[in-house]
Amino acid sequence: MAEAGAPGGRVRAVIDAVRPSVDGGRFAVKRVTGERFAVEADCFADGHDALRAVLRWRAEDAADWREAEMQPLGNDRWRAEFTAGAPGRYRYTVTAWVDHFQTWLKEFLLREDAADIRVAALAGAGLIEACAARAKGAERKRLADWAARVRAGIDFDTEELKTLCLEAPLIELAARHPDRGLATSWPLELPLVVDRERARHGAWYEMFPRSAAPEPGRHGTFRDCEARLAYVAELGFDVLYLPPIHPIGRAQRKGPNNALGAGPGDLGSPWAIGSAEGGHKAVHPQLGTREDFRRLVAKAASLGIEIALDIAFQCSPDHPYVKEHPQWFRRRPDGSVQYAENPPKKYQDIYPFDFETEDWRALWAELKSVLDFWIGEGVRIFRVDNPHTKSFAFWEWAIDAVRRAHPEVIFLAEAFTRPKVMHRLAKLGFTQSYTYFAWRNTKRELTEYFTELAHGPGREYFRASAWPNTPDILTEALQFGGRGAFMARLVLAATLCASYGIYGPAFELMESQPREPGSEEYLDSEKYQLRHWDLERPDSLRPLVALVNRIRRENPALQADGSLRFFPTDHEQLLCYAKATEDGANQIVVVVNLDPRNAHAGWVELDLAALGVAADRPYQMHDLISGARFLWQGARNYVQLDPQRVPAHVFRVRRRVRREQDFDYFA
Amino acid sequence: MAEAGAPGGRVRAVIDAVRPSVDGGRFAVKRVTGERFAVEADCFADGHDALRAVLRWRAEDAADWREAEMQPLGNDRWRAEFTAGAPGRYRYTVTAWVDHFQTWLKEFLLREDAADIRVAALAGAGLIEACAARAKGAERKRLADWAARVRAGIDFDTEELKTLCLEAPLIELAARHPDRGLATSWPLELPLVVDRERARHGAWYEMFPRSAAPEPGRHGTFRDCEARLAYVAELGFDVLYLPPIHPIGRAQRKGPNNALGAGPGDLGSPWAIGSAEGGHKAVHPQLGTREDFRRLVAKAASLGIEIALDIAFQCSPDHPYVKEHPQWFRRRPDGSVQYAENPPKKYQDIYPFDFETEDWRALWAELKSVLDFWIGEGVRIFRVDNPHTKSFAFWEWAIDAVRRAHPEVIFLAEAFTRPKVMHRLAKLGFTQSYTYFAWRNTKRELTEYFTELAHGPGREYFRASAWPNTPDILTEALQFGGRGAFMARLVLAATLCASYGIYGPAFELMESQPREPGSEEYLDSEKYQLRHWDLERPDSLRPLVALVNRIRRENPALQADGSLRFFPTDHEQLLCYAKATEDGANQIVVVVNLDPRNAHAGWVELDLAALGVAADRPYQMHDLISGARFLWQGARNYVQLDPQRVPAHVFRVRRRVRREQDFDYFA
Repeated sequence: MAEAGAPGGRVRAVIDAVRPSVDGGRFAVKRVTGERFAVEADCFADGHDALRAVLRWRAEDAADWREAEMQPLGNDRWRAEFTAGAPGRYRYTVTAWVDHFQTWLKEFLLREDAADIRVAALAGAGLIEACAARAKGAERKRLADWAARVRAGIDFDTEELKTLCLEAPLIELAARHPDRGLATSWPLELPLVVDRERARHGAWYEMFPRSAAPEPGRHGTFRDCEARLAYVAELGFDVLYLPPIHPIGRAQRKGPNNALGAGPGDLGSPWAIGSAEGGHKAVHPQLGTREDFRRLVAKAASLGIEIALDIAFQCSPDHPYVKEHPQWFRRRPDGSVQYAENPPKKYQDIYPFDFETEDWRALWAELKSVLDFWIGEGVRIFRVDNPHTKSFAFWEWAIDAVRRAHPEVIFLAEAFTRPKVMHRLAKLGFTQSYTYFAWRNTKRELTEYFTELAHGPGREYFRASAWPNTPDILTEALQFGGRGAFMARLVLAATLCASYGIYGPAFELMESQPREPGSEEYLDSEKYQLRHWDLERPDSLRPLVALVNRIRRENPALQADGSLRFFPTDHEQLLCYAKATEDGANQIVVVVNLDPRNAHAGWVELDLAALGVAADRPYQMHDLISGARFLWQGARNYVQLDPQRVPAHVFRVRRRVRREQDFDYFA
Repeated sequence: MAEAGAPGGRVRAVIDAVRPSVDGGRFAVKRVTGERFAVEADCFADGHDALRAVLRWRAEDAADWREAEMQPLGNDRWRAEFTAGAPGRYRYTVTAWVDHFQTWLKEFLLREDAADIRVAALAGAGLIEACAARAKGAERKRLADWAARVRAGIDFDTEELKTLCLEAPLIELAARHPDRGLATSWPLELPLVVDRERARHGAWYEMFPRSAAPEPGRHGTFRDCEARLAYVAELGFDVLYLPPIHPIGRAQRKGPNNALGAGPGDLGSPWAIGSAEGGHKAVHPQLGTREDFRRLVAKAASLGIEIALDIAFQCSPDHPYVKEHPQWFRRRPDGSVQYAENPPKKYQDIYPFDFETEDWRALWAELKSVLDFWIGEGVRIFRVDNPHTKSFAFWEWAIDAVRRAHPEVIFLAEAFTRPKVMHRLAKLGFTQSYTYFAWRNTKRELTEYFTELAHGPGREYFRASAWPNTPDILTEALQFGGRGAFMARLVLAATLCASYGIYGPAFELMESQPREPGSEEYLDSEKYQLRHWDLERPDSLRPLVALVNRIRRENPALQADGSLRFFPTDHEQLLCYAKATEDGANQIVVVVNLDPRNAHAGWVELDLAALGVAADRPYQMHDLISGARFLWQGARNYVQLDPQRVPAHVFRVRRRVRREQDFDYFA
């Protein structure tokens, strides 16, 4: 018959549907430092007694809970919130109880006949005495005195007695000493992961160090990357992400354009990691030394840029692990190591780890030590290559283990795979996730996908990162869309998604030749060879990239995705959407012409209430791209966008703040 | 680093989102015996290896699991089903694993070059040998022989070798002996409650025994109820529900129409339970004896009718409990027992139990013994009065405890209260729940509410019961709608909801006078006095009630709610909806004119695909109310309904089954 211990069956309050919650608390909800974290729950009890509920939270390694009183929203739903603190793991839960003092108060206010009021006043005195017993010092005395005054006044006129019982400051004081002896708590202490702000927004620039030399033909070095930092800073990027910087395998090395069999001078792919010179903790000799790398990290930091490293947990056949830990790899029946394959395709230059190895503990520990090693070198952001081909259990353990020591570390999952798998990785701990953005081009595709990302169940744990291109992805849209497509895709990525990135200089120089028709691979890809980029080319998108990144920095509305909403337009090629800060002070409306070749005009229909704009007053739309300012009124407005110039408006909405008598003035 | 024990970190399969599941397994999903129970889950692993998954289930007290292989539905979703067995509690869960044999098979089929095929064939032989080691007897030998044949044929022509490796019956045999050493299971064994069929559908008739005497003025008895059974059977009801049959308190007894202070001949309310003659386990002397009650139960059973008893856990001031267990009641400061109140209203004839009593164990045990007592008298259905004013924890324990011994017992929750509270009671174990049906009158209200009931999250645990009236609820619709309203509300309740009931003879005799204007109480309610009902009145709805109940019995589509769907009509007063059996063999389409006074005509738009009807062929609509048969074609059809006759069609859809050359013939 229920639990043996008190209070057992006497508990009457019930808690249900605590939200947010990812898979019933199996995984953590994510927030960044400084964000408000609101929790709701159904709280109720049998009968009509009054209820109280508190939201409780603590850092995972702290013993003490903090509390916020929950407020009823109607329909038995309650809510409270707190501000997310320093990065780390937290727990939150809800406690509720039937509150006899509040019940007494609620009923006392409704009582009418005198006898009833007197009996109730006596009951109240008893409840106040119980509050006093739970209070201390001066508070206890104030409550005890109050109870005594009520008892002394029990034969007063009932109006006087009511007044005596209903002293607001004393009621408030009594409420601070509730009887929680029969309280119930949500059985789960739900996990919350707090990240630093960069987890929520940032502009990433991916670049191959091998091509960073200023002169054609020479292999780039970390020193060359250092020199390139000014350019990256001018473009306004927050993160500079480098493909793997480790020694490249020689066995089965691929030649230019992924040719089987490399020539003597061929460089191979940086993702074929490991050679006699070392593995995942070594630096490719042609790039420089660990010391050079540390200098690069420090110099970047001085410019406000973080270096992100690529983590690709796989080996070239001459990686030291293959000899040192043969048990970490699967064998074929002929005794050879099993290379990566997707029959009939073979990737003989890559040996995957066997996560079913009986020596999994040592394998896990070694892989984690790779992360620790680079953290030791100053890296705090990892872009993880194909995490979905390594075991989920490993990632959950490794990310958590790293972050317990370094909660500021950010992991970006490069998993372009099935939706459930991408979501699982985000739940397991990846801070950010690549998305299908590269392949979402039409108005309907973009609207549906980004609505799902911003408002679907993933919103609590899946942080999207939008990339118009990567070294593996030269989309059809960019191959055939010309300059107009590059511009539109840049603006879309940078404004739809608080985290976005480009693979440059291929992007700003509008590199668009595929290896062969129907392929998304770049011709003469840097994955297999050096490239020399002319950054000073007059047609470079460099100024637009710099402008878009400046707009992102200056407009906090673009630094989060939760407020994204799409507005109707009457043209299939015109996409319109808005973002705002929580306080509504910063409102951005974006209109993009999705046709890369032709100018289009049409009408957009804004949700003025959502924008905080009065329907009967003009408001200013300040295009942060062109600098032009338009005076609009009402929901329906005309736009015209020409991809020969810039196929997008990024409007800041400026509401009239002075009175009519003033000069026009918009904030 | 994860769990210490094997297989620990080697497990690669993942299971997520197992459905159905109520609050993450905190509460049971409900089904009735013979229903299909389908379970879905996300199952996947890292990489591209093949996966297998099984649904597992067992009776809660059985040690052995049964299994069904799950099938992939796409998007990493898997599904399997089984048929719900005998009433009782069950558990179900999902197990999945990366299957190396299936991976080998999938890849083997794609391999092209000869060397590759030979190495893979050797790997296959190894896997088959492992399957053999897990098999026994003849199966082991067949598998071992197969592996030997593959090894012997390794130098054959590759086409021959492929044929050798791909013998379908042997592949199937090998699949029956998978390596589940690294399998993962959903961590929860989710609860499933299986009820008997009456839990899902039934027609209830509520009747006051006190008014069952055939002659006016005499107090009815169980013997009179026995005589009334033929009438109830003629009306086609499955359940006869009696208000409390216990001794009625004398202290604070209410007079007719709830008057304060009863006269000497006044009978009081059956819900004011308990007097010197006994409490919840006694029979009101004016109704007869326990022996009489048992006879009534037996006689009813012989007519296919079950007797449902009212369980109202509250006491009149002279209930024996008040003296014997004073600690079960709250005290006022003046020492008197706290009566029920909702300030400023007082219900001094009712003492509620104090579920916060320290003596809760004894209270719970005694209340459960009341249920056990009546189960001993042959009762298997309880209608529980105001369960939401008793503690939730008590109900969860009591219902479970009763049903472990008697899984056939049905509990109907009479909780007309807030939605969350009603849902909680259903989750805690109540088999069926009263609904807001009585107050849902317009097309929009009915469509929204019954769509929510049939398809909302409650569909897994909340079984609706629709009552157009009860002794406490004479709705405005019935007070002012006349005969048309009674007919429409009867058809709506009986066809929207597989479980429905009426309070008679007030319903079929269209009793519509409220105690006072604006009240939902009946004038001269049987709750406080005898009534004599003229069952033979020529205007009685008796024939319609009998017909509707016969239609329900003959059409299994009306015996479940999951298939309910609404179809558009072009008239605000015309409501159209359909129900079907899972196999589609029984299709019912209902059209109701919601205006009780005026005839209306309009067009209904059927979803022909859902009805399994061809758009280009005529089909017959057989109105089971009027007997008329209409030949319709296409989705859009005309209806006209006059409340002066019957305001509803209940069509059985009859599709043409013979060929065109035959005479018209519809099944």
